[in-house]
Amino acid sequence: MTEVRLFRGSQRVAAPSPLDRGLAYGDGLFETLRAHRGELPWWDRHWARLRRGAAQLGIALPDERQALAEARQLLDGADAVLKLILSRGEGGRGYAPPPQPVSAWSLSRHALPPSPPPEGLSLRWCELRLGMQPALAGLKHCNRLEQVLARAEWDDPGLHEGLLRNLDEDLIGATAANVFLLQGDAWLTPPVDRSGVAGVCRQALMELAEVRVRRLNADDLLHADAVFLCNAVRGILPVARLGERHWAPHPAIAGLRHRLGATHPAFVPSQD
Amino acid sequence: MTEVRLFRGSQRVAAPSPLDRGLAYGDGLFETLRAHRGELPWWDRHWARLRRGAAQLGIALPDERQALAEARQLLDGADAVLKLILSRGEGGRGYAPPPQPVSAWSLSRHALPPSPPPEGLSLRWCELRLGMQPALAGLKHCNRLEQVLARAEWDDPGLHEGLLRNLDEDLIGATAANVFLLQGDAWLTPPVDRSGVAGVCRQALMELAEVRVRRLNADDLLHADAVFLCNAVRGILPVARLGERHWAPHPAIAGLRHRLGATHPAFVPSQD
Repeated sequence: MTEVRLFRGSQRVAAPSPLDRGLAYGDGLFETLRAHRGELPWWDRHWARLRRGAAQLGIALPDERQALAEARQLLDGADAVLKLILSRGEGGRGYAPPPQPVSAWSLSRHALPPSPPPEGLSLRWCELRLGMQPALAGLKHCNRLEQVLARAEWDDPGLHEGLLRNLDEDLIGATAANVFLLQGDAWLTPPVDRSGVAGVCRQALMELAEVRVRRLNADDLLHADAVFLCNAVRGILPVARLGERHWAPHPAIAGLRHRLGATHPAFVPSQD
Repeated sequence: MTEVRLFRGSQRVAAPSPLDRGLAYGDGLFETLRAHRGELPWWDRHWARLRRGAAQLGIALPDERQALAEARQLLDGADAVLKLILSRGEGGRGYAPPPQPVSAWSLSRHALPPSPPPEGLSLRWCELRLGMQPALAGLKHCNRLEQVLARAEWDDPGLHEGLLRNLDEDLIGATAANVFLLQGDAWLTPPVDRSGVAGVCRQALMELAEVRVRRLNADDLLHADAVFLCNAVRGILPVARLGERHWAPHPAIAGLRHRLGATHPAFVPSQD
Protein backbone atom coordinates (compact mmCIF):
# COMPACT_ATOMS: atom_id res chain seq x y z
CA MET A 1 0.00 0.00 0.00
CA THR A 2 1.51 3.29 -1.13
CA GLU A 3 1.59 5.95 1.58
CA VAL A 4 0.52 9.40 0.44
CA ARG A 5 0.25 12.82 2.08
CA LEU A 6 -1.85 15.49 0.40
CA PHE A 7 -1.80 19.24 0.85
CA ARG A 8 -3.71 22.28 -0.30
CA GLY A 9 -1.40 25.23 0.17
CA SER A 10 0.14 24.53 3.59
CA GLN A 11 -2.86 22.54 4.89
CA ARG A 12 -2.91 18.77 5.00
CA VAL A 13 -6.05 17.43 3.33
CA ALA A 14 -7.62 14.00 3.12
CA ALA A 15 -8.17 13.71 -0.63
CA PRO A 16 -7.56 15.49 -3.93
CA SER A 17 -10.25 17.92 -5.06
CA PRO A 18 -12.40 16.58 -7.91
CA LEU A 19 -11.87 20.01 -9.50
CA ASP A 20 -8.07 19.83 -9.34
CA ARG A 21 -6.58 21.15 -12.57
CA GLY A 22 -4.13 18.28 -12.47
CA LEU A 23 -7.02 15.90 -13.19
CA ALA A 24 -8.54 18.23 -15.77
CA TYR A 25 -5.47 19.29 -17.73
CA GLY A 26 -2.34 17.68 -16.29
CA ASP A 27 -1.71 21.23 -15.08
CA GLY A 28 1.21 20.46 -12.81
CA LEU A 29 4.76 19.27 -12.31
CA PHE A 30 6.35 16.31 -10.58
CA GLU A 31 9.64 15.09 -9.17
CA THR A 32 10.73 11.52 -8.48
CA LEU A 33 13.48 11.32 -5.87
CA ARG A 34 15.73 8.60 -4.57
CA ALA A 35 15.61 8.30 -0.79
CA HIS A 36 18.54 6.68 1.02
CA ARG A 37 18.02 5.83 4.69
CA GLY A 38 15.33 8.48 4.80
CA GLU A 39 17.54 11.19 3.29
CA LEU A 40 17.11 12.81 -0.11
CA PRO A 41 20.61 13.44 -1.46
CA TRP A 42 19.40 15.33 -4.54
CA TRP A 43 16.63 17.32 -2.84
CA ASP A 44 18.23 20.65 -3.80
CA ARG A 45 18.49 19.67 -7.45
CA HIS A 46 14.89 18.45 -7.59
CA TRP A 47 13.60 21.51 -5.79
CA ALA A 48 15.53 23.82 -8.13
CA ARG A 49 13.98 22.13 -11.17
CA LEU A 50 10.53 22.26 -9.57
CA ARG A 51 11.04 25.96 -8.86
CA ARG A 52 12.03 26.65 -12.48
CA GLY A 53 9.04 24.73 -13.79
CA ALA A 54 6.63 26.40 -11.38
CA ALA A 55 7.92 29.83 -12.44
CA GLN A 56 7.53 28.93 -16.10
CA LEU A 57 3.98 27.64 -15.66
CA GLY A 58 2.98 30.26 -13.09
CA ILE A 59 2.21 27.73 -10.35
CA ALA A 60 2.74 28.71 -6.70
CA LEU A 61 5.45 26.68 -4.99
CA PRO A 62 4.84 25.15 -1.53
CA ASP A 63 7.08 26.13 1.35
CA GLU A 64 10.29 24.18 0.84
CA ARG A 65 10.97 23.56 4.53
CA GLN A 66 7.49 22.18 5.04
CA ALA A 67 7.78 19.95 1.98
CA LEU A 68 11.14 18.56 3.09
CA ALA A 69 10.01 18.00 6.68
CA GLU A 70 6.90 16.16 5.51
CA ALA A 71 8.96 14.10 3.07
CA ARG A 72 11.36 13.04 5.82
CA GLN A 73 8.50 12.06 8.12
CA LEU A 74 6.88 10.04 5.35
CA LEU A 75 10.15 8.29 4.52
CA ASP A 76 10.84 7.40 8.15
CA GLY A 77 14.41 6.36 7.48
CA ALA A 78 13.66 4.12 4.54
CA ASP A 79 15.37 3.39 1.25
CA ALA A 80 12.57 4.27 -1.11
CA VAL A 81 11.34 6.39 -3.98
CA LEU A 82 9.61 9.64 -3.10
CA LYS A 83 7.27 11.19 -5.63
CA LEU A 84 6.16 14.81 -5.34
CA ILE A 85 3.31 16.10 -7.51
CA LEU A 86 2.51 19.82 -7.60
CA SER A 87 -0.66 20.99 -9.33
CA ARG A 88 -2.06 24.46 -9.88
CA GLY A 89 -4.95 23.48 -7.62
CA GLU A 90 -8.69 23.79 -8.02
CA GLY A 91 -10.17 25.49 -11.03
CA GLY A 92 -13.45 26.04 -12.78
CA ARG A 93 -14.30 24.72 -16.21
CA GLY A 94 -12.03 26.69 -18.54
CA TYR A 95 -8.32 26.91 -19.22
CA ALA A 96 -7.97 30.26 -17.46
CA PRO A 97 -6.99 29.61 -13.83
CA PRO A 98 -8.93 31.27 -11.02
CA PRO A 99 -7.46 34.61 -9.91
CA GLN A 100 -5.89 33.22 -6.74
CA PRO A 101 -5.34 29.49 -7.20
CA VAL A 102 -4.06 27.56 -4.17
CA SER A 103 -1.59 24.88 -5.25
CA ALA A 104 -2.24 21.26 -4.39
CA TRP A 105 0.69 18.95 -3.76
CA SER A 106 1.27 15.40 -2.70
CA LEU A 107 4.11 13.26 -1.45
CA SER A 108 4.03 9.50 -1.95
CA ARG A 109 6.44 6.81 -0.90
CA HIS A 110 7.12 3.85 -3.17
CA ALA A 111 9.33 0.78 -3.10
CA LEU A 112 12.69 1.00 -4.86
CA PRO A 113 12.60 -0.60 -8.31
CA PRO A 114 14.46 -3.89 -8.73
CA SER A 115 18.18 -3.62 -9.41
CA PRO A 116 19.06 -3.51 -13.09
CA PRO A 117 20.47 -6.73 -14.56
CA PRO A 118 24.25 -6.81 -13.96
CA GLU A 119 24.94 -7.45 -17.65
CA GLY A 120 23.18 -4.18 -18.60
CA LEU A 121 19.83 -3.12 -20.04
CA SER A 122 18.14 -4.43 -23.15
CA LEU A 123 16.44 -1.64 -25.08
CA ARG A 124 14.01 -1.26 -27.96
CA TRP A 125 13.06 1.60 -30.23
CA CYS A 126 9.63 3.08 -29.62
CA GLU A 127 7.39 3.64 -32.62
CA LEU A 128 5.95 6.82 -31.15
CA ARG A 129 7.81 9.98 -32.08
CA LEU A 130 7.84 12.76 -29.49
CA GLY A 131 6.42 16.11 -30.50
CA MET A 132 8.42 19.32 -30.16
CA GLN A 133 7.28 22.03 -27.78
CA PRO A 134 9.95 24.55 -26.72
CA ALA A 135 7.53 26.12 -24.21
CA LEU A 136 7.40 22.87 -22.21
CA ALA A 137 10.57 20.97 -23.14
CA GLY A 138 12.94 20.25 -20.28
CA LEU A 139 10.22 20.56 -17.63
CA LYS A 140 9.04 17.57 -15.66
CA HIS A 141 5.41 18.51 -16.20
CA CYS A 142 2.37 16.29 -15.86
CA ASN A 143 1.44 16.13 -19.57
CA ARG A 144 2.86 12.66 -20.11
CA LEU A 145 0.55 10.91 -22.55
CA GLU A 146 3.44 10.54 -25.00
CA GLN A 147 5.41 8.58 -22.43
CA VAL A 148 2.32 6.56 -21.47
CA LEU A 149 1.72 5.60 -25.11
CA ALA A 150 5.39 4.84 -25.71
CA ARG A 151 5.62 2.65 -22.58
CA ALA A 152 2.48 0.79 -23.66
CA GLU A 153 4.20 -0.36 -26.86
CA TRP A 154 5.84 -3.37 -25.19
CA ASP A 155 5.23 -5.71 -22.29
CA ASP A 156 8.18 -8.09 -22.71
CA PRO A 157 9.85 -7.99 -19.26
CA GLY A 158 13.15 -8.79 -20.99
CA LEU A 159 13.10 -5.34 -22.57
CA HIS A 160 13.95 -2.78 -19.90
CA GLU A 161 13.36 0.51 -21.65
CA GLY A 162 12.29 2.08 -24.92
CA LEU A 163 14.26 4.74 -26.77
CA LEU A 164 12.41 7.76 -28.11
CA ARG A 165 13.06 9.93 -31.14
CA ASN A 166 11.14 13.08 -31.93
CA LEU A 167 9.33 13.92 -35.17
CA ASP A 168 12.64 15.20 -36.59
CA GLU A 169 14.18 11.75 -35.85
CA ASP A 170 16.43 13.24 -33.20
CA LEU A 171 17.27 10.83 -30.39
CA ILE A 172 15.83 12.29 -27.16
CA GLY A 173 16.06 9.65 -24.43
CA ALA A 174 14.10 6.74 -23.01
CA THR A 175 10.55 6.80 -21.64
CA ALA A 176 11.82 7.46 -18.09
CA ALA A 177 15.53 8.21 -18.46
CA ASN A 178 18.04 10.37 -20.27
CA VAL A 179 20.60 8.82 -22.62
CA PHE A 180 24.38 9.30 -22.87
CA LEU A 181 26.66 8.02 -25.65
CA LEU A 182 30.42 7.58 -25.70
CA GLN A 183 32.14 8.52 -28.97
CA GLY A 184 35.85 7.84 -28.60
CA ASP A 185 36.55 9.58 -25.32
CA ALA A 186 33.70 12.12 -25.61
CA TRP A 187 30.45 11.84 -23.70
CA LEU A 188 27.43 13.11 -25.64
CA THR A 189 23.82 13.68 -24.62
CA PRO A 190 20.96 15.25 -26.58
CA PRO A 191 19.62 18.74 -25.88
CA VAL A 192 16.21 18.93 -24.18
CA ASP A 193 15.11 22.33 -25.46
CA ARG A 194 12.49 21.02 -27.93
CA SER A 195 11.57 17.57 -26.56
CA GLY A 196 12.51 15.59 -23.46
CA VAL A 197 13.15 16.26 -19.79
CA ALA A 198 16.17 17.94 -18.18
CA GLY A 199 16.92 15.03 -15.87
CA VAL A 200 18.41 15.62 -12.45
CA CYS A 201 20.90 12.78 -12.85
CA ARG A 202 21.77 14.08 -16.35
CA GLN A 203 22.59 17.45 -14.79
CA ALA A 204 24.65 15.89 -12.01
CA LEU A 205 26.68 13.92 -14.57
CA MET A 206 27.29 17.03 -16.66
CA GLU A 207 28.93 18.52 -13.56
CA LEU A 208 31.01 15.40 -12.89
CA ALA A 209 32.34 14.84 -16.40
CA GLU A 210 32.85 16.73 -19.61
CA VAL A 211 29.68 16.14 -21.60
CA ARG A 212 28.83 17.67 -24.95
CA VAL A 213 25.17 18.48 -25.55
CA ARG A 214 24.55 17.79 -29.24
CA ARG A 215 21.71 16.71 -31.48
CA LEU A 216 22.00 12.95 -31.95
CA ASN A 217 20.19 10.40 -34.07
CA ALA A 218 19.77 6.64 -34.33
CA ASP A 219 23.02 6.25 -36.29
CA ASP A 220 24.99 8.07 -33.61
CA LEU A 221 23.59 5.66 -31.07
CA LEU A 222 24.33 2.53 -33.09
CA HIS A 223 27.92 3.68 -33.70
CA ALA A 224 28.54 4.71 -30.10
CA ASP A 225 31.31 2.92 -28.22
CA ALA A 226 29.17 2.73 -25.09
CA VAL A 227 25.66 3.80 -24.07
CA PHE A 228 23.94 4.33 -20.75
CA LEU A 229 20.61 5.58 -19.48
CA CYS A 230 20.27 7.54 -16.28
CA ASN A 231 17.65 8.90 -13.94
CA ALA A 232 17.47 10.23 -10.42
CA VAL A 233 16.12 7.01 -8.92
CA ARG A 234 18.45 4.48 -10.52
CA GLY A 235 21.55 6.49 -11.34
CA ILE A 236 23.60 5.20 -14.29
CA LEU A 237 22.20 2.18 -16.15
CA PRO A 238 24.64 0.70 -18.68
CA VAL A 239 23.05 -0.53 -21.91
CA ALA A 240 23.97 -3.99 -23.17
CA ARG A 241 21.74 -4.42 -26.18
CA LEU A 242 19.49 -2.69 -28.68
CA GLY A 243 18.09 -5.17 -31.18
CA GLU A 244 21.11 -6.80 -32.85
CA ARG A 245 23.57 -4.24 -31.50
CA HIS A 246 25.45 -5.36 -28.39
CA TRP A 247 27.76 -3.34 -26.19
CA ALA A 248 30.32 -4.91 -23.88
CA PRO A 249 30.77 -3.38 -20.41
CA HIS A 250 32.93 -0.29 -20.87
CA PRO A 251 35.48 1.04 -18.37
CA ALA A 252 34.39 4.63 -19.06
CA ILE A 253 30.88 3.84 -17.78
CA ALA A 254 32.30 1.99 -14.78
CA GLY A 255 34.49 5.04 -14.07
CA LEU A 256 31.58 7.44 -14.26
CA ARG A 257 29.43 5.21 -12.03
CA HIS A 258 32.24 5.13 -9.54
CA ARG A 259 32.51 8.93 -9.52
CA LEU A 260 28.75 9.26 -9.13
CA GLY A 261 28.75 6.71 -6.30
CA ALA A 262 31.47 8.73 -4.57
CA THR A 263 29.09 11.72 -4.36
CA HIS A 264 26.61 9.77 -2.25
CA PRO A 265 26.17 6.13 -1.18
CA ALA A 266 22.66 6.15 -2.66
CA PHE A 267 24.26 5.99 -6.10
CA VAL A 268 26.75 3.20 -5.50
CA PRO A 269 25.68 0.46 -7.93
CA SER A 270 24.42 -2.58 -6.03
CA GLN A 271 26.79 -4.99 -7.79
CA ASP A 272 29.90 -2.99 -6.81
CA MET B 1 -20.61 25.55 -5.79
CA THR B 2 -19.97 23.10 -8.62
CA GLU B 3 -21.74 19.78 -8.20
CA VAL B 4 -19.62 16.73 -8.97
CA ARG B 5 -20.21 12.98 -9.03
CA LEU B 6 -17.22 10.65 -9.00
CA PHE B 7 -16.96 7.02 -10.01
CA ARG B 8 -14.44 4.22 -9.97
CA GLY B 9 -15.59 1.72 -12.56
CA SER B 10 -19.34 1.55 -11.92
CA GLN B 11 -19.07 2.48 -8.21
CA ARG B 12 -19.78 5.94 -6.92
CA VAL B 13 -16.90 7.20 -4.77
CA ALA B 14 -16.45 10.20 -2.50
CA ALA B 15 -13.15 11.56 -3.81
CA PRO B 16 -10.51 11.04 -6.48
CA SER B 17 -7.68 8.68 -5.63
CA PRO B 18 -4.39 10.44 -4.85
CA LEU B 19 -2.81 7.84 -7.16
CA ASP B 20 -5.09 8.61 -10.10
CA ARG B 21 -3.08 8.66 -13.31
CA GLY B 22 -5.01 11.72 -14.36
CA LEU B 23 -3.22 13.67 -11.61
CA ALA B 24 0.12 12.05 -12.37
CA TYR B 25 0.19 12.21 -16.16
CA GLY B 26 -3.00 13.80 -17.48
CA ASP B 27 -3.73 10.21 -18.53
CA GLY B 28 -7.34 10.73 -19.54
CA LEU B 29 -9.93 12.29 -21.80
CA PHE B 30 -12.73 14.77 -21.31
CA GLU B 31 -15.91 16.03 -22.90
CA THR B 32 -17.71 19.33 -22.31
CA LEU B 33 -21.39 19.16 -23.21
CA ARG B 34 -24.18 21.68 -23.55
CA ALA B 35 -27.24 20.75 -21.50
CA HIS B 36 -30.61 22.19 -22.48
CA ARG B 37 -33.45 21.74 -20.00
CA GLY B 38 -31.58 18.76 -18.61
CA GLU B 39 -31.12 17.08 -21.99
CA LEU B 40 -27.84 16.58 -23.82
CA PRO B 41 -28.56 17.05 -27.52
CA TRP B 42 -25.06 16.02 -28.65
CA TRP B 43 -24.57 13.15 -26.19
CA ASP B 44 -24.12 10.63 -29.02
CA ARG B 45 -21.45 12.75 -30.70
CA HIS B 46 -19.55 13.30 -27.46
CA TRP B 47 -19.76 9.66 -26.50
CA ALA B 48 -18.53 8.57 -29.95
CA ARG B 49 -15.49 10.84 -29.63
CA LEU B 50 -14.85 9.63 -26.09
CA ARG B 51 -15.07 6.02 -27.32
CA ARG B 52 -12.56 6.69 -30.12
CA GLY B 53 -10.17 8.41 -27.72
CA ALA B 54 -10.49 5.66 -25.12
CA ALA B 55 -9.77 3.03 -27.76
CA GLN B 56 -6.72 4.95 -28.97
CA LEU B 57 -5.32 5.40 -25.45
CA GLY B 58 -6.39 1.97 -24.20
CA ILE B 59 -8.63 3.33 -21.43
CA ALA B 60 -11.74 1.36 -20.40
CA LEU B 61 -14.97 3.19 -21.12
CA PRO B 62 -17.70 3.41 -18.43
CA ASP B 63 -21.12 1.97 -19.16
CA GLU B 64 -22.84 4.50 -21.41
CA ARG B 65 -26.32 4.02 -19.96
CA GLN B 66 -25.03 4.56 -16.43
CA ALA B 67 -23.10 7.66 -17.46
CA LEU B 68 -26.10 9.17 -19.22
CA ALA B 69 -28.49 8.37 -16.36
CA GLU B 70 -26.11 9.91 -13.81
CA ALA B 71 -25.65 12.97 -16.03
CA ARG B 72 -29.41 13.51 -16.30
CA GLN B 73 -29.85 13.19 -12.54
CA LEU B 74 -27.06 15.66 -11.93
CA LEU B 75 -28.50 18.15 -14.45
CA ASP B 76 -31.99 17.93 -12.95
CA GLY B 77 -33.62 19.74 -15.86
CA ALA B 78 -31.19 22.64 -15.97
CA ASP B 79 -29.60 24.65 -18.75
CA ALA B 80 -25.97 24.08 -17.90
CA VAL B 81 -22.58 22.79 -18.98
CA LEU B 82 -21.77 19.19 -18.17
CA LYS B 83 -18.15 18.14 -18.00
CA LEU B 84 -17.13 14.50 -18.11
CA ILE B 85 -13.56 13.48 -17.26
CA LEU B 86 -12.40 9.89 -17.83
CA SER B 87 -9.03 8.81 -16.47
CA ARG B 88 -7.21 5.50 -16.71
CA GLY B 89 -7.59 5.20 -12.94
CA GLU B 90 -5.12 4.39 -10.20
CA GLY B 91 -1.58 3.50 -11.01
CA GLY B 92 1.78 2.97 -9.39
CA ARG B 93 4.80 5.15 -9.96
CA GLY B 94 5.77 4.44 -13.57
CA TYR B 95 4.30 5.11 -16.98
CA ALA B 96 3.25 1.47 -17.47
CA PRO B 97 -0.36 1.10 -16.28
CA PRO B 98 -1.27 -1.66 -13.84
CA PRO B 99 -2.40 -4.88 -15.56
CA GLN B 100 -6.11 -4.31 -14.85
CA PRO B 101 -6.69 -0.60 -14.33
CA VAL B 102 -10.19 0.46 -13.28
CA SER B 103 -11.16 3.72 -14.95
CA ALA B 104 -12.11 6.72 -12.85
CA TRP B 105 -14.66 9.18 -14.19
CA SER B 106 -16.45 12.25 -13.03
CA LEU B 107 -19.42 14.35 -14.04
CA SER B 108 -19.62 18.00 -13.03
CA ARG B 109 -22.28 20.59 -13.62
CA HIS B 110 -21.33 24.18 -14.36
CA ALA B 111 -23.16 27.42 -15.15
CA LEU B 112 -23.57 28.34 -18.81
CA PRO B 113 -20.99 30.90 -19.92
CA PRO B 114 -22.24 34.43 -20.60
CA SER B 115 -23.72 35.03 -24.05
CA PRO B 116 -21.21 36.24 -26.61
CA PRO B 117 -21.35 39.95 -27.46
CA PRO B 118 -23.95 40.49 -30.21
CA GLU B 119 -21.45 42.37 -32.38
CA GLY B 120 -19.12 39.34 -32.44
CA LEU B 121 -15.91 38.22 -30.76
CA SER B 122 -12.66 40.15 -30.49
CA LEU B 123 -9.66 37.85 -30.92
CA ARG B 124 -5.91 37.99 -30.47
CA TRP B 125 -3.04 35.88 -31.73
CA CYS B 126 -1.36 33.71 -29.11
CA GLU B 127 2.42 33.75 -28.94
CA LEU B 128 2.58 30.07 -28.05
CA ARG B 129 2.84 27.73 -31.02
CA LEU B 130 1.20 24.33 -30.67
CA GLY B 131 3.39 21.28 -31.07
CA MET B 132 2.54 18.53 -33.53
CA GLN B 133 1.71 15.03 -32.31
CA PRO B 134 -0.19 12.83 -34.75
CA ALA B 135 -0.61 10.14 -32.05
CA LEU B 136 -2.74 12.52 -29.94
CA ALA B 137 -4.07 15.13 -32.37
CA GLY B 138 -7.83 15.31 -32.66
CA LEU B 139 -8.42 13.70 -29.25
CA LYS B 140 -9.89 15.67 -26.37
CA HIS B 141 -7.26 14.33 -24.00
CA CYS B 142 -6.23 15.77 -20.65
CA ASN B 143 -2.73 16.94 -21.66
CA ARG B 144 -3.67 20.59 -21.98
CA LEU B 145 -0.70 22.60 -20.76
CA GLU B 146 -0.38 24.21 -24.19
CA GLN B 147 -3.91 25.58 -23.89
CA VAL B 148 -3.32 26.63 -20.28
CA LEU B 149 -0.19 28.57 -21.27
CA ALA B 150 -1.88 30.11 -24.31
CA ARG B 151 -4.92 31.20 -22.28
CA ALA B 152 -2.62 32.73 -19.65
CA GLU B 153 -1.17 35.11 -22.25
CA TRP B 154 -3.97 37.67 -21.82
CA ASP B 155 -6.39 38.83 -19.18
CA ASP B 156 -8.11 41.69 -21.02
CA PRO B 157 -11.82 40.78 -20.72
CA GLY B 158 -12.40 42.66 -23.99
CA LEU B 159 -10.49 39.92 -25.81
CA HIS B 160 -12.69 36.85 -26.01
CA GLU B 161 -10.38 34.22 -27.43
CA GLY B 162 -6.84 33.63 -28.67
CA LEU B 163 -5.98 32.06 -32.02
CA LEU B 164 -3.35 29.35 -32.12
CA ARG B 165 -0.87 28.39 -34.81
CA ASN B 166 1.39 25.37 -34.65
CA LEU B 167 5.18 25.29 -35.02
CA ASP B 168 4.73 25.12 -38.81
CA GLU B 169 2.67 28.37 -38.60
CA ASP B 170 -0.49 26.53 -39.61
CA LEU B 171 -3.66 28.05 -38.15
CA ILE B 172 -5.23 25.41 -35.87
CA GLY B 173 -8.03 27.05 -33.88
CA ALA B 174 -8.60 28.98 -30.66
CA THR B 175 -7.72 27.87 -27.13
CA ALA B 176 -11.19 26.35 -26.62
CA ALA B 177 -12.83 26.41 -30.05
CA ASN B 178 -12.38 25.40 -33.66
CA VAL B 179 -12.18 28.02 -36.41
CA PHE B 180 -14.00 28.31 -39.76
CA LEU B 181 -13.23 30.77 -42.57
CA LEU B 182 -15.36 31.85 -45.52
CA GLN B 183 -13.49 32.31 -48.81
CA GLY B 184 -15.99 33.46 -51.44
CA ASP B 185 -18.74 30.90 -50.95
CA ALA B 186 -16.47 28.15 -49.58
CA TRP B 187 -16.25 27.25 -45.90
CA LEU B 188 -12.79 26.17 -44.80
CA THR B 189 -11.51 24.69 -41.54
CA PRO B 190 -8.05 23.35 -40.68
CA PRO B 191 -7.27 19.63 -40.37
CA VAL B 192 -6.72 18.33 -36.82
CA ASP B 193 -4.48 15.38 -37.62
CA ARG B 194 -1.24 16.94 -36.28
CA SER B 195 -2.44 19.57 -33.77
CA GLY B 196 -5.82 20.58 -32.39
CA VAL B 197 -9.04 18.91 -31.33
CA ALA B 198 -11.73 17.36 -33.52
CA GLY B 199 -14.53 19.46 -32.08
CA VAL B 200 -18.04 18.08 -31.79
CA CYS B 201 -19.59 21.30 -33.14
CA ARG B 202 -17.00 21.34 -35.95
CA GLN B 203 -18.15 17.84 -36.92
CA ALA B 204 -21.84 18.78 -36.74
CA LEU B 205 -21.22 21.78 -39.02
CA MET B 206 -19.33 19.64 -41.52
CA GLU B 207 -22.50 17.55 -41.80
CA LEU B 208 -24.74 20.62 -42.18
CA ALA B 209 -22.71 22.48 -44.81
CA GLU B 210 -20.07 21.82 -47.41
CA VAL B 211 -16.79 22.45 -45.62
CA ARG B 212 -13.32 21.94 -47.05
CA VAL B 213 -10.68 20.74 -44.61
CA ARG B 214 -7.46 22.43 -45.69
CA ARG B 215 -4.23 23.66 -44.17
CA LEU B 216 -4.66 27.37 -43.43
CA ASN B 217 -2.37 30.10 -42.18
CA ALA B 218 -2.58 33.62 -40.78
CA ASP B 219 -2.86 35.16 -44.26
CA ASP B 220 -5.82 32.96 -45.13
CA LEU B 221 -7.52 34.16 -41.99
CA LEU B 222 -6.85 37.84 -42.58
CA HIS B 223 -8.14 37.58 -46.15
CA ALA B 224 -11.24 35.59 -45.24
CA ASP B 225 -14.62 37.15 -45.99
CA ALA B 226 -15.99 35.97 -42.66
CA VAL B 227 -14.69 34.04 -39.65
CA PHE B 228 -16.33 32.20 -36.80
CA LEU B 229 -15.28 30.05 -33.87
CA CYS B 230 -17.37 27.15 -32.63
CA ASN B 231 -17.58 24.70 -29.79
CA ALA B 232 -20.11 22.31 -28.34
CA VAL B 233 -21.13 24.61 -25.49
CA ARG B 234 -21.57 27.88 -27.37
CA GLY B 235 -22.28 26.79 -30.93
CA ILE B 236 -21.25 29.29 -33.63
CA LEU B 237 -19.47 32.45 -32.45
CA PRO B 238 -19.04 35.07 -35.20
CA VAL B 239 -15.74 36.95 -35.11
CA ALA B 240 -15.82 40.75 -35.38
CA ARG B 241 -12.19 41.70 -34.91
CA LEU B 242 -8.62 40.49 -34.85
CA GLY B 243 -6.23 43.36 -34.15
CA GLU B 244 -6.85 45.92 -36.90
CA ARG B 245 -8.88 43.53 -39.06
CA HIS B 246 -12.64 43.92 -38.72
CA TRP B 247 -15.36 41.73 -40.14
CA ALA B 248 -18.95 42.91 -40.60
CA PRO B 249 -21.75 40.46 -39.75
CA HIS B 250 -22.03 38.08 -42.70
CA PRO B 251 -25.25 36.49 -43.98
CA ALA B 252 -23.45 33.18 -44.56
CA ILE B 253 -22.69 32.91 -40.84
CA ALA B 254 -26.23 33.92 -39.94
CA GLY B 255 -27.50 31.25 -42.33
CA LEU B 256 -25.32 28.54 -40.81
CA ARG B 257 -26.32 29.57 -37.28
CA HIS B 258 -29.93 29.32 -38.32
CA ARG B 259 -29.41 25.82 -39.73
CA LEU B 260 -27.59 24.74 -36.58
CA GLY B 261 -30.34 26.23 -34.39
CA ALA B 262 -32.90 24.26 -36.40
CA THR B 263 -31.24 21.00 -35.31
CA HIS B 264 -31.91 21.73 -31.63
CA PRO B 265 -33.18 24.71 -29.61
CA ALA B 266 -30.00 24.56 -27.48
CA PHE B 267 -28.13 26.08 -30.40
CA VAL B 268 -30.48 28.92 -31.25
CA PRO B 269 -28.39 32.07 -30.71
CA SER B 270 -29.76 34.09 -27.80
CA GLN B 271 -30.04 37.30 -29.85
CA ASP B 272 -32.22 35.67 -32.54
